Amino acid sequence: GAAPAIVHAQTQLRWRLASSFPKSLDTIFGAADVFAKKIGEMSGGKFQISVHAGGELMPPFGVVDGVQSGTVEMAHTAPYYFVGKDETFAIGCTIPFGLNSRQMTAWMYEGNGLKLMREFYARYNIINFPGGNTGAQMGGWYRKPIKSLADMKGLKMRVAGFAGRVMERMGVVPQNLPGGEIYQALEKGIIDAAEWVGPYDDQKLGFYKVAPHYHFPGWWEGGPQLDFFINQKAYDSLPAEYKSMVEAAASHAHAEMQARYDARNPLALKQLVAAKTELVQFPKPVLDAAFKHAMDIYSELNEKNPAWRKVYADYAKFRADQNLWFRFTEATFDRYMQSAKL
Amino acid sequence: GAAPAIVHAQTQLRWRLASSFPKSLDTIFGAADVFAKKIGEMSGGKFQISVHAGGELMPPFGVVDGVQSGTVEMAHTAPYYFVGKDETFAIGCTIPFGLNSRQMTAWMYEGNGLKLMREFYARYNIINFPGGNTGAQMGGWYRKPIKSLADMKGLKMRVAGFAGRVMERMGVVPQNLPGGEIYQALEKGIIDAAEWVGPYDDQKLGFYKVAPHYHFPGWWEGGPQLDFFINQKAYDSLPAEYKSMVEAAASHAHAEMQARYDARNPLALKQLVAAKTELVQFPKPVLDAAFKHAMDIYSELNEKNPAWRKVYADYAKFRADQNLWFRFTEATFDRYMQSAKL
Repeated sequence: GAAPAIVHAQTQLRWRLASSFPKSLDTIFGAADVFAKKIGEMSGGKFQISVHAGGELMPPFGVVDGVQSGTVEMAHTAPYYFVGKDETFAIGCTIPFGLNSRQMTAWMYEGNGLKLMREFYARYNIINFPGGNTGAQMGGWYRKPIKSLADMKGLKMRVAGFAGRVMERMGVVPQNLPGGEIYQALEKGIIDAAEWVGPYDDQKLGFYKVAPHYHFPGWWEGGPQLDFFINQKAYDSLPAEYKSMVEAAASHAHAEMQARYDARNPLALKQLVAAKTELVQFPKPVLDAAFKHAMDIYSELNEKNPAWRKVYADYAKFRADQNLWFRFTEATFDRYMQSAKL
Repeated sequence: GAAPAIVHAQTQLRWRLASSFPKSLDTIFGAADVFAKKIGEMSGGKFQISVHAGGELMPPFGVVDGVQSGTVEMAHTAPYYFVGKDETFAIGCTIPFGLNSRQMTAWMYEGNGLKLMREFYARYNIINFPGGNTGAQMGGWYRKPIKSLADMKGLKMRVAGFAGRVMERMGVVPQNLPGGEIYQALEKGIIDAAEWVGPYDDQKLGFYKVAPHYHFPGWWEGGPQLDFFINQKAYDSLPAEYKSMVEAAASHAHAEMQARYDARNPLALKQLVAAKTELVQFPKPVLDAAFKHAMDIYSELNEKNPAWRKVYADYAKFRADQNLWFRFTEATFDRYMQSAKL
């Protein structure tokens, strides 16, 4: 049947969203597009959000300042980029040996995660909405495979933010390089290793050609959550209908992004392996050392940073409970399926 | 700041949603409430959906007929209840040794799942939207633990729908009992075992008191998806804004329901164990036999049911790819975390 006519009389609004990502990362960047498109549809075109790639309006890592000051109404980013401001940002994204994707969503939606992180982000005039997850990332590309803890010593590795602090205690020399410069640095041996995301994104940058040892698990990124950051005043000024649309559209983008990674990673992995990528599992002593250093750092932060202490206490308890439960039916079901001839 | 005034001039609509679930299952039933509330908010109260518990407007298993005929505009249900109409319904929910929760969402949102299932549901004048997932369910409560395949023989077990067909080939005598009658039947020994959902829901029914051996994994329900079923004509008559709201509200409820189960199951599990529940892993030969019977049944259905064949072919390929990928970084990260001292 024909749709009944609608008289539009809702508030006309135009917002700008600054993404921290390039358009080439169509999975992560795409979540902001999915969000904006949904808002446009639901509001009958009255509430328009233009999505801008990293660097277009402000530097990729300038988006918290941009939202805080109201230069843009909102951003889409990975909160752990901002650990330089406060380590607590990382808990809202991922920390080494943290929650996996499903557990992170559970902490946010039904644990105390959203409440605690919003309390923290309020310091920056920000209200957040979960806006996607990559799932557990891979542990990066290495020119030579890591066979022991000793192999980590002196390793020059491109690794983002917080994980570098743990790596440093293992003797790694963390390097900060933009995505576009990693390939050449690996090729020339300026760095020995680099982590990026997972098969779908990594394949595009071609690392397998120059550092073919692809390690797992990415223990520092078990379930990184992206967030929509919205200027609190801009949010407060929204009519109730639009506030609700923001929440639902964010949930839609949140579910959609994890689904997109999950659907696309398998083919990329197969192609990478066909192109002679070697999959290497980190030796247990490497994980054990990293785990110990991570827990030490968290204890030290508990002493130094009251915001961290408050959020981490809740997060750590939730993590212990989640892993207690997931080890039974989820883990044994998955393990059976992964070993079955399908 | 004060919200700008809005002149409401959207279409006034009232829909009824028939749930297949009782209000006491606040996680599953709750997803319909979350959906309806969101629609109400986003439309400024113009699009109202009243949610009715199973049995209130029609029998819990009558909701497909109800939506098909337009008696109600929509329902919230577990599609596998309707395998009596066509086995293909089960693929849209869960089948033994099927996709887990995240994989099912990936198949629906970014694989061919939604497209293929909608093509199938069109026969019933239905368009569907994913509306929640329970995660991997537990494998039920047993008066005596299952120690071998022989222990399954002659077992009188309360088990829902499709799984019963696999169980029958293992010598189990499947029983169909409403939730409210299971406890007494277990207590009196009329049945030997019963499956329901997972710790949070099962705890309320008290099975641990009379059949304390709680098995895992629930191989027949690795990631059951709930669906919102909407009458196609009712959906077609919606203005574009409301169609979009339906999709976003469904995604919101979808993410929310899995989060709610994940957040609530750990405490229930701990309380059950404190009350002397014994956790028992199914022996591998039981899983192997069940897997073989399940795959036989799927092959037979490929011969008999063209709708099944078309959907299952895509599903099975997706499942193989997903498990290929998940066994690396996701599985090894989870396994490390589950064995860590947290």
